[in-house]
Amino acid sequence: MTQWGEIARERLEIISMASQPGPGVTRLPFSDQHEAAIGIITGWMRAAGCAVHLDAAGTLVGRRAGPAGAGTLLIGSHQDSVRQGGCFDGIMGVALGCLALEKLEQDRVDLPFAVEILAFADEEGVRFPTALLGSRALAGTLDPTVFAMCDARGETLGDALARFGGDRDAALLLARDPADTLGYLELHIEQGPVLETLDAPLGVVTAISGIERHAVTIIGETGHAGTVPMELRRDALRAGAKLVEAVHDLALRHDLRATVGALTVSPNVVNAIPSQVDLTVEIRAPEDNAREAAGEDLARICADIARETRTEIVATRSYAQPAIACDLTLRAQLQTAVRDVTGQAPELASGATHDASAMADLCPVAMMFVRCHKGISHSPAEHARDEDMGAAVEALAETLRAFDPAARTLAHPQSVI
Amino acid sequence: MTQWGEIARERLEIISMASQPGPGVTRLPFSDQHEAAIGIITGWMRAAGCAVHLDAAGTLVGRRAGPAGAGTLLIGSHQDSVRQGGCFDGIMGVALGCLALEKLEQDRVDLPFAVEILAFADEEGVRFPTALLGSRALAGTLDPTVFAMCDARGETLGDALARFGGDRDAALLLARDPADTLGYLELHIEQGPVLETLDAPLGVVTAISGIERHAVTIIGETGHAGTVPMELRRDALRAGAKLVEAVHDLALRHDLRATVGALTVSPNVVNAIPSQVDLTVEIRAPEDNAREAAGEDLARICADIARETRTEIVATRSYAQPAIACDLTLRAQLQTAVRDVTGQAPELASGATHDASAMADLCPVAMMFVRCHKGISHSPAEHARDEDMGAAVEALAETLRAFDPAARTLAHPQSVI
Repeated sequence: MTQWGEIARERLEIISMASQPGPGVTRLPFSDQHEAAIGIITGWMRAAGCAVHLDAAGTLVGRRAGPAGAGTLLIGSHQDSVRQGGCFDGIMGVALGCLALEKLEQDRVDLPFAVEILAFADEEGVRFPTALLGSRALAGTLDPTVFAMCDARGETLGDALARFGGDRDAALLLARDPADTLGYLELHIEQGPVLETLDAPLGVVTAISGIERHAVTIIGETGHAGTVPMELRRDALRAGAKLVEAVHDLALRHDLRATVGALTVSPNVVNAIPSQVDLTVEIRAPEDNAREAAGEDLARICADIARETRTEIVATRSYAQPAIACDLTLRAQLQTAVRDVTGQAPELASGATHDASAMADLCPVAMMFVRCHKGISHSPAEHARDEDMGAAVEALAETLRAFDPAARTLAHPQSVI
Repeated sequence: MTQWGEIARERLEIISMASQPGPGVTRLPFSDQHEAAIGIITGWMRAAGCAVHLDAAGTLVGRRAGPAGAGTLLIGSHQDSVRQGGCFDGIMGVALGCLALEKLEQDRVDLPFAVEILAFADEEGVRFPTALLGSRALAGTLDPTVFAMCDARGETLGDALARFGGDRDAALLLARDPADTLGYLELHIEQGPVLETLDAPLGVVTAISGIERHAVTIIGETGHAGTVPMELRRDALRAGAKLVEAVHDLALRHDLRATVGALTVSPNVVNAIPSQVDLTVEIRAPEDNAREAAGEDLARICADIARETRTEIVATRSYAQPAIACDLTLRAQLQTAVRDVTGQAPELASGATHDASAMADLCPVAMMFVRCHKGISHSPAEHARDEDMGAAVEALAETLRAFDPAARTLAHPQSVI
């Protein structure tokens, strides 16, 4: 019996060398490292019986043909990494997709539909201040202004893409026909500790959480730490501390995730009462209603803390992105296969954004998560076990084998959760 | 009747022009601005009937002679400012001391002792990483290693002093004879809001608070703000927030001042759970026992918060300076005079350090505080009213007139509080 998990690990070890020097993996889009990765992934795709080409947005596409007019099921993830990231985030989904197809080749299974494996150039958005380039191109939602964005060395995205063999004008014409697209599946490490806590190798994603961010500025009054009595202080950091605690309570009360990730203090010296605190609040939830209710709650909390601490608090919602519901039919198919392979199929929401978020504008989407060590991600310590990756290959192959193109959801996936 | 407060204000306005360009007053020791200030203060001292000289530590000394062998009462404060400070901190004490002597001259009062007005070069410690230069020289506690300290442009304190007409070797020989020194009085703006809250123009200082500082490092675990469930987090900032609140409660419980002035977060990005927080805790109290008890309490609080938040907290006491008790006899004399002039004489501790802290190693010390607007200090908005400064001149003159050199406290002042 083929040890798919070990093959996956060996392949991920090899491609991890397509990295800038330094700890972990640094592979930015349209770089020499991306070029090297393309060469390696082309080999994986060909071994899976695919014809390979690079599309105009820099996505490497491996196509396993199907009967004429039967439609295409898409499987993908991204090749790029954050700086000093791990060996699994993104690229593992590409590797496992190829191995699932290779397993079907090995088992001599014919599928009544075409399959494409997609290795997107840029999901992380590290090199340019935009992300999800390849998936947005396929969904037809690519904003043409992103091509004018510059990287740290001043090269535009359009020029970097052209040097890599892509084409900005052609990229804007890549939108797939929804009628021909059966769905999009993505395998990814969980990037969180839920599956490990549940002792489950694999899980099925219910929805990709929506996100909102708030920029909060607290204005108090500085003063000498020795001379101003406690009861006369208007300490911006004390108000900030109360807000950090309140944001945690907010998350528990609304059953979602809320985080104060960044906080800065002015004047930030040992013997001065803080006059100003700037902080961020990020709220993520698979249910937009819950997230928005929490956001409104936050505004009330800020007003209460301002009154209590005699500070001024201005909170502004700086960003909002709705949740993406995974397709119920695809979810059920993944669950059946995951349960067959691992004996259980826990469901969980994705707190992070993925290429599936963009692909949802094109077709039904679903995701399978692979357990990762301690939930660590975006770090050289990121790790998934061989046996869990092997189980994912088996479960994806079984999903493909059982997939009935006629049973696909035609409605837009956002309507269900 | 002479309007001493108005004269004080006019003089402080004029000397405020001896400043680097920019908002407020910036007058660093041994600078061109210091040189200009010396010229102006010399005029104040001569108008008060003093003979003037610059000592080897850069202190401008104006001496009003007394009977031979009668001893000398010292009155002083500092000429220097913080960067972009106000017109009152330090220099007001010099101005009011000169005016009190000038009033006695005008009233043709002979004193049975000598008086010296001292304008210290450097109390703030802004230019070099040391402070209280002139007062330590007089007290005989000057550390010779400070002369090797450099300013931001690389000039040593020793060289800057020499260019200004001082001399490092001679400065180490400036220690006064305690037997000849009757005491040290300092007038200063309160730098806090207590007198304003009490509606009192003047107050008498009981003690200069002791200080201890703690450096606290909190180690948690970072993670994706979307993927890690609240209950599995080890959020260093949440622990930090609990500590900020606990430090406030600590201050109330021990009836002292405790401040988290500086706090930094790592990695400090909107979508990552904070892995590390570094913060400072400063505790100030006029009673060393209370301060030390609070410091020990802080260690217990850190341990409790570490347990509760599953973080690691390391707190290190990085600095400690004992409290300085003001002399009971001098305090009583100031109180009598302040009550005569203003109808009340509230007592309060000084939360800030002053030249009196260093002079306490030489002789009995006492301080009179002048009410300042909203407690603001170290800011261009620093302000004391003309009438309050006038009252301070009257009260200091009355204190000098009533001062009995024979009744002075001979014991070291630290024994009482």
